[in-house]
This record gives sequence, C-alpha cells and structure tokens, in this order.
Amino acid sequence: MGTGSSVSCALVYEIATPTTMVIQVAATPDPGTRLSERLDVTNNAAPLLAHEIADTHGGRQHLLHAEPGVLTLAYQASIDPSSQPPERVTELARVIALRPSRYCPSDRIAGFAQSHFGSLPTALDRVRAICDYVWEHITYQTATSGPTTDAIDTLLTGHGVCRDFAHLVTTLCRAVDVPARVAAVYAPGLSPMDFHLVVETEIQHYWQVWDATRLAPRPTLTRIATGRDAADVAFVTTISGTAELQNLEITAVANGDLPLDDHQQLVTLS
Amino acid sequence: MGTGSSVSCALVYEIATPTTMVIQVAATPDPGTRLSERLDVTNNAAPLLAHEIADTHGGRQHLLHAEPGVLTLAYQASIDPSSQPPERVTELARVIALRPSRYCPSDRIAGFAQSHFGSLPTALDRVRAICDYVWEHITYQTATSGPTTDAIDTLLTGHGVCRDFAHLVTTLCRAVDVPARVAAVYAPGLSPMDFHLVVETEIQHYWQVWDATRLAPRPTLTRIATGRDAADVAFVTTISGTAELQNLEITAVANGDLPLDDHQQLVTLS
Amino acid sequence: MGTGSSVSCALVYEIATPTTMVIQVAATPDPGTRLSERLDVTNNAAPLLAHEIADTHGGRQHLLHAEPGVLTLAYQASIDPSSQPPERVTELARVIALRPSRYCPSDRIAGFAQSHFGSLPTALDRVRAICDYVWEHITYQTATSGPTTDAIDTLLTGHGVCRDFAHLVTTLCRAVDVPARVAAVYAPGLSPMDFHLVVETEIQHYWQVWDATRLAPRPTLTRIATGRDAADVAFVTTISGTAELQNLEITAVANGDLPLDDHQQLVTLS
Amino acid sequence: MGTGSSVSCALVYEIATPTTMVIQVAATPDPGTRLSERLDVTNNAAPLLAHEIADTHGGRQHLLHAEPGVLTLAYQASIDPSSQPPERVTELARVIALRPSRYCPSDRIAGFAQSHFGSLPTALDRVRAICDYVWEHITYQTATSGPTTDAIDTLLTGHGVCRDFAHLVTTLCRAVDVPARVAAVYAPGLSPMDFHLVVETEIQHYWQVWDATRLAPRPTLTRIATGRDAADVAFVTTISGTAELQNLEITAVANGDLPLDDHQQLVTLS
Repeated sequence: MGTGSSVSCALVYEIATPTTMVIQVAATPDPGTRLSERLDVTNNAAPLLAHEIADTHGGRQHLLHAEPGVLTLAYQASIDPSSQPPERVTELARVIALRPSRYCPSDRIAGFAQSHFGSLPTALDRVRAICDYVWEHITYQTATSGPTTDAIDTLLTGHGVCRDFAHLVTTLCRAVDVPARVAAVYAPGLSPMDFHLVVETEIQHYWQVWDATRLAPRPTLTRIATGRDAADVAFVTTISGTAELQNLEITAVANGDLPLDDHQQLVTLS
Repeated sequence: MGTGSSVSCALVYEIATPTTMVIQVAATPDPGTRLSERLDVTNNAAPLLAHEIADTHGGRQHLLHAEPGVLTLAYQASIDPSSQPPERVTELARVIALRPSRYCPSDRIAGFAQSHFGSLPTALDRVRAICDYVWEHITYQTATSGPTTDAIDTLLTGHGVCRDFAHLVTTLCRAVDVPARVAAVYAPGLSPMDFHLVVETEIQHYWQVWDATRLAPRPTLTRIATGRDAADVAFVTTISGTAELQNLEITAVANGDLPLDDHQQLVTLS
Repeated sequence: MGTGSSVSCALVYEIATPTTMVIQVAATPDPGTRLSERLDVTNNAAPLLAHEIADTHGGRQHLLHAEPGVLTLAYQASIDPSSQPPERVTELARVIALRPSRYCPSDRIAGFAQSHFGSLPTALDRVRAICDYVWEHITYQTATSGPTTDAIDTLLTGHGVCRDFAHLVTTLCRAVDVPARVAAVYAPGLSPMDFHLVVETEIQHYWQVWDATRLAPRPTLTRIATGRDAADVAFVTTISGTAELQNLEITAVANGDLPLDDHQQLVTLS
Repeated sequence: MGTGSSVSCALVYEIATPTTMVIQVAATPDPGTRLSERLDVTNNAAPLLAHEIADTHGGRQHLLHAEPGVLTLAYQASIDPSSQPPERVTELARVIALRPSRYCPSDRIAGFAQSHFGSLPTALDRVRAICDYVWEHITYQTATSGPTTDAIDTLLTGHGVCRDFAHLVTTLCRAVDVPARVAAVYAPGLSPMDFHLVVETEIQHYWQVWDATRLAPRPTLTRIATGRDAADVAFVTTISGTAELQNLEITAVANGDLPLDDHQQLVTLS
C-alpha cells in the first residue's frame, strides 16, 4: 500500500459544434481513502457545470454540454490511502471478469493460453508467468498501435503501449480461467507522464494489480476507472458533436520516495 | 405491449467434477410487471439451493455448486405485462451501449456503416435501414457459426443464427451513433423453440426492440437478460468444474393469439 | 488501346549493410509492343550490374547486390503499343486468378459478395457492379492503410489508396467466380504521380482492366508487373541487408492527349 | 532419399450440372525419377479425356469437363527416386517463397516470430526451433479447422490438421526470412491414410522438407504439387458447375520398410 500521492490533469478542447461529452479523469479510490479534490471546467472562459454519473464499475464520469469555442478542464486531487482491508471480489464481478471483451478476446486465444500457461498449478503462478511472458516478448513502442488494436494484434506484432500490454495480459489471464480487468490510473514515476493502464486479477478473493510494462511502481498508483478493457475507461467519450483535444497535461507525484517494485509481489490497488 | 405469456425451460446437465456455474434463465421483466415463477434445481435427485445474484444490467443470475452426477433445473413463469410506462434510458446506459464489445466491434466497421447508413437523418431511420439490410443480406442457417463468431464474420459469410443477426444489427447501430444492446428473451411463436436473442436501441430516450430474423413477434417477447452482446447473456457459464448439457427444453406461449408484427413499428420490450 | 507513352522512375536508397534486393519497375508490355528503354544503376557513384530475372507472371525483376552507401536506380522507357490482338487467357491463369491470396481473401467474403453481386447474370455485369460499389463506398485517403491492410479491412474502414481499391475489387470478383488479378502500372494523368495498382478480370477469354479509383484513364496505362495481389508486384523487395528509400520520382506521359475514360467500357492493358 | 513407393487414389464425384474441374493428384517427382503411372477417368461409365496442364510451380493439373451423373478418377503410380542431386533453388523461387500468402500471412506475425525465433543464428536453427514449437504447442485434431482457417487461427486455437501445421510452420519461417512453401504429398505410413501437406524451406540453396505433425517419415514422401499454401495445391478445384465428392480412397506404400525419421535431419523431397 502506498503513502499517498498528489495528481492532476488539465485538458483543453476545441469545440466545433454543440457537444455532449463524458470525462473520466477523477480519482476513484477505495472506500476509507481520504480524497481531497477539485474540478474546474470552463467553456469560453465561463464556468461550466459537470454532472457526475457513477459507473457501475465504480468509476466516476462527468457529463458536460459544451458550446462551440474552448473547453478547459482542470482536475487535482490528493489521496491518502485507506488503512482498511480491501473489499472481497463479488461473484458477479468474477463472472464478468472472465468474459471476453472487445480488446481482450480471450475466447479466440484459449488454445494458445492453455498450451503456454495452463499447466501451471495456481492462478498466481499463471498470472506471474503471463506478465513475464508479455514483458519479455512485447516491446514498448509508441505510434505502432491504435484505437482498434486488440490483444491478438499485440501478440502478433510484438509491440505496443501500456494499453496493449494490459489488454494482452488480461486476455491471457481470462483464457486460463483467471478473472481479469483493466484499471486506468495515475502513475507516479511514469516517464513520460501520461494516463496509465494496468491489470487487476482476482487472486484468492482480492483484486491484485499487475503492470507488464514495469514502467511505474504499483504501490503508488491511483485508480481512475475500472473496466473490461480500454473501451470502458477512456478519459473522454464524445456522445454528440465534435471536440478536438488541443492540450493534455498530467502530473502524479508520490508523497515521499517512489517505492521499489519487483513486479512479482502481490499489490492491491488502493 | 403484449398480453402476457407463460414460459418455461428445463435443463439437464451431467456433472463430471464438483462444479460452480451460473444459470441465467429467469424472466427479468420491467418493474410493475406481475411475475409468478418457480425454480426447481436438483443434484442427484436432491434439491439444490440456487443463490440469486443480480447483474448490473438487470439480469438475474443463479449461482449453483453441483456435485458429480446429474443436475436438473426447471424454471417456469407466467408474466403479466405492466401498464406502467417504460423507464427512460439513463446517461450511463447510453454511454455503455455506444461502446464496442467482443462480438460487436463497432469501431472496426465504422466506415462501412457510415457509408451505407450514416446519411439517413434520424436514429430511427438508420435502425430500420440496418434491420432491413441484415434481414435481406444474411441467411438464417444453423451450424454455420459458433461461439467465437463476431458481427464482422457474419457480414462476410452472409449467414448465421439469431445471435449473429443481433450482433450485426447492434454493431452497425453503434457505428452510426445509435446506442444498442442485446436482450436474451423467451419468444412465443419461435419455431423451432429456443432461447432467442434480439436488439434494443435507444430511440428518443426509450429502449426499442428489433429482430432482424423476423422469426417471432416482438410484443410477446419476455426479457431474460440484457447485455453488450452474447458474452453477457449466456444461459449458462461454468466458473469451475465440468458440466455437459444433456437436454434442453423450452416453451413460450402467449396468452391469446400471437400478435402480428411488421418489424417496422416501435415496440418496447416488457 | 493507347497511342504510346513515355515513363521513367528514379530511386535513391541508403544502404546500411551489404544488401540483396529485387527491383520491379521495368515496363512489361505485351508481345509485339515496341519498347525502347534504359536502366542505369549506381552504387556509390560506380555503375552496378542488375541481373534480370523473369517472373512466371510475366513481370521483370532486377536483382541487385549493393554495398553500404548510396544506391541509385534510373529507368526510362518509351512504349509503342502493339497492333496485335491480345493473348487469350490460359486455363492455368484462370485457375490461379480464382484462388484467394494474402490481401484478397475471397474465401472469407463469399457470402457478402454472392448476396450483393452474385445474382447478376454475366461476369461483366458483376465486375461493373463491383467497381461501382467500391468507387461509391470507399473514400480515397492516404495514410489510413498500410502494408498489412487486406481487402476486408478496406471494406470495413471505408477508405484506402489504389492498392486497397484494387484488392477489394479483386477479392469481390473472385468471390463471384470471376478470375481477377492485379497489375502494377505507370499511369499517365495520375495526380499526384505514383506507381499505380489496377485490376484485371477475365471476361470472355481476355484480361480486361479496371480501376475503381477512376484516377487515370485506362487506355494509356503501361504494365510493370502482374500478380495475385500487392505481395507479387512490390517495386522493391529486400532479400537481405537494409535499404532505406530516400527519394522516389516517377513520370508517365501519354503521347498526345490523355484519352477520356468512362470506366465502364472494356479496355485491354497493353 | 527413399527407396521408392507405390501410390494410388480413387475419387468418385456426383456431378449435378455440366462441370469443369481441375484435379491435382498425379505424382510430380524430380527430374531423373522413374515414374510409371496410369490415370483412368470415367463419366457415367464412359472414358473421359483429362487434359494435363502444367502448373508454374511444377505441379500437374488435369482439366476435366464432366456431364451430370457420376465421375470417377483412378490414379496409380510407382516411383523410383532419382540418384541425381536435387536442383538448386532459383532466385525467383526464393523471392516468391518469402512473400505472405492467403493462409500464411507472415507479415502479420513478424513481431511474434522475430521475438521467439529471430535471434537464432542460422536458418536451419530457426526452422528446427519453429518445427519443435509447432509440434509442442499445436494438438493434432480433426474437425476443428476448415477451409478458411489460416496460420494465425491455428496459433491461437492450438489445434488443427496437417494443413494447419504446415501453414503455421511456413508462416513463421517466412517471418524470420527463411523462404518456405508447402508441398502436397503421398505419405507412406500416414494413419489414417490421406493426402498430406508438408513444408519445404530453402536451406543453403536446396529445398528441405519438414513435417511438424511427425506423422509420417519424410524420406518416402512423394510430391504431388508445390505452392505458396493450400490454395495452390487443392486436389480438386471446381471452376464451374457442381461436383460433390462421394468417395475418396488413397494408398501409399513404401518399397521395403518404412524409414525411421527423427524429424531433425535434413531431408530432400524426391
């Protein structure tokens, strides 16, 4: 468990026509966490109200109606992790986390996954072997994958970004009967700084977090949103109209030194 | 709106090893509907308790732990539709119903969908044109698709079953910005009788139901489960162990005559 | 039939390690055509011998062994079309042109093709309908497709370049039993000037050429190479070593005025 | 090199409408081989002439025009392998054998192949590692793949038949720059007896044969046809009309004992 962190993001959009959009950037930590936060939205320099809608996965979405011109969104938060034990995974969450999804088509890769990882005795063994395999065989490389890239594309092309690493780990885990989902996070230590995507797998009734990119220590990650794959945790979804991102700035700083992470031990996302 | 119906299903499984499974066959009608139902589960002739867990989508799942031997499940219900108006679609449900999913990869088919249906002025025009297109170009044919078949496979091969029709309609709708989801239903009039899968699209704040197979009238359908695609509404999911389906019998009978259905008018799934 | 043309291309490569490559840029017109041509290759300013190997498809490949440094290749030709009638399509060529290939997976799209074009009575009707369909539904757009894009990707995304148009037409033709292949050509009138890719279909014993991009008149095209799809007609294939293209200049000028082309009439590629 | 073999096949087709088809079942051994053979074709009990057309790959195709009714084809041959050394691989054959093809999309799997096999020093090391990998991770299983299955499907599902094993080996070899093609063969020792598909890779200027199924010894294989993948070597292609296979019988017997085969040594297909 981490010692707390401060995070922020600032987005600037150019709005061409009246636009309805959903923003998903607010921290969504566990119950018991002390969260102090502030969200400021302006549309053509005037304050704009953002209506918060809770996602069933536990993420927080902010619904905005913006007029043509400039939309700015500034979010900042400081997070003090809870000392409460994490919540047990529900049966329903387990069932959903075993289903194939758009970017994690675990049903198509079942034979490959079983043949490579299926004979390992425990779920933890399988997850660790999968994370090692992905870290070893996939090269972190920007501008080689896109919004329609799925986990199978990543396995075949051998490169991608955090989204692609997370999708491939998630897909292989589900295919060997380990419930798995993705979490969008603020990641102190990530360089260059960006929104980050990691994996959570159910191990003995609790969600444990994994990052096959090994680019940031897991104990100081802060959850933004949880979902089946990237389709559920996009930081922006335009529902109608046209919004073009002009600028995006993100910060994430741990209180105190960044923890070490061997990427083997069990870590719970706070 | 229909005039009520009586439905039932009976499943027999052979259980090889201690098995945990989730069954999703119970009717899940709208609030206000009078539902009279009975579920009997036996494991090696002794009654077995089925624990009901509510899905976030509004389906009802029954969790079972069965010992090796025979598992039987018998469900029957009579449904009297509500006279209440249907509920408005929430913002969150709209956002989720626009996302691509495993069998409905709307992001991959965006250009095709826009080019064929995108210029039609209203959501209703687009949905009707899509249902007509699928009905015209896809041949209903069993044993030609399988559990990994997605909507693009169906578009290319030109044949499939209700699941494939529903996936293709859902995918094309999402790709032209119409929120769409699938519903597993009991379908009086379907021949041969089976579980059926249809589509719901959001039209002016309400879910409207569509069936491009045109195999059963929509007003007397009874909802079992709702989801992004077939991955969410499977009638059985084996979580651990091994269960083999030995027999499946389904009945669905409308009270009174089966209604006519031109498959053009707006119909709300009760 | 055209009235002749003058074509040229100039390539500059930077060679990092000793490299073996095959260049396919020389005109390959029909027997009887008068062809006057010149090929100059230099490696670090010294002349380099290019060994010509004939492809079984009738293309002409030049094999080069280059040392690290600069490789330049300059080709120019003037072509006077033959007045001989074209050759009949052989049985073997017909059989090969019906097979699916890497970028033209006609076996996967059979249902779609049959449903949309299969009921038209003659091969010519089907080809014309396919070319019209592709021209209408695919948008010419650079930088949206790549070397692994196949005809199905193009159908789904709705955009591409000449290569993608040619692959989609070829695929749909084969799927409705019309033998089809691609031809790389010099294309007077094309703007911006580039190597161009078009389709040939067998209609009543002769190859007829089609261009669903409609970007250049067919009568003044000059054949470079023929193949199943782009995999066969690449203008360069690096067999070993590393060659990076630094510059590419192409010219293609018709003798006399550019002919009009309604893209409906039968035209034979000379 | 083997000590000779006797092979035969007998096909019975039901012809519904006047049908043109190409049959590819005749042995196509190397120059110098003594081949004694006989082909008998009947259509409704009357002898039918089969016109032989040579494929550019060196296969032999027999073109037939059959009337409605019954078509039978009986082929038998005895083969005495040549004592001549095999022919060197031509530059053109090398170039073609590096190209991706319909069922061997080596361009899509480049990253996976490079990451798993690319660092091995010689072509022979890479081919052996690939054959071992495929043998270890793919399960031989009938009725799980079909005519549209490609090498990537096989990698993902983890099962298939000889066609699928050959496609996956071919694809991985091409992706690590080893020229590879498939050969349809008669295979003494195969059980159950059937047409068999194996791989040839260019190793130091000669084609060497590989069989990742390890189901029959390589030295007594007899070549029927060679191609890029199964699309080129189908034993029957219907060009027009409708022919339904009613019966297929194949025999292949080695002269003398079946040789042992460790599936590691270099073997040339005679």
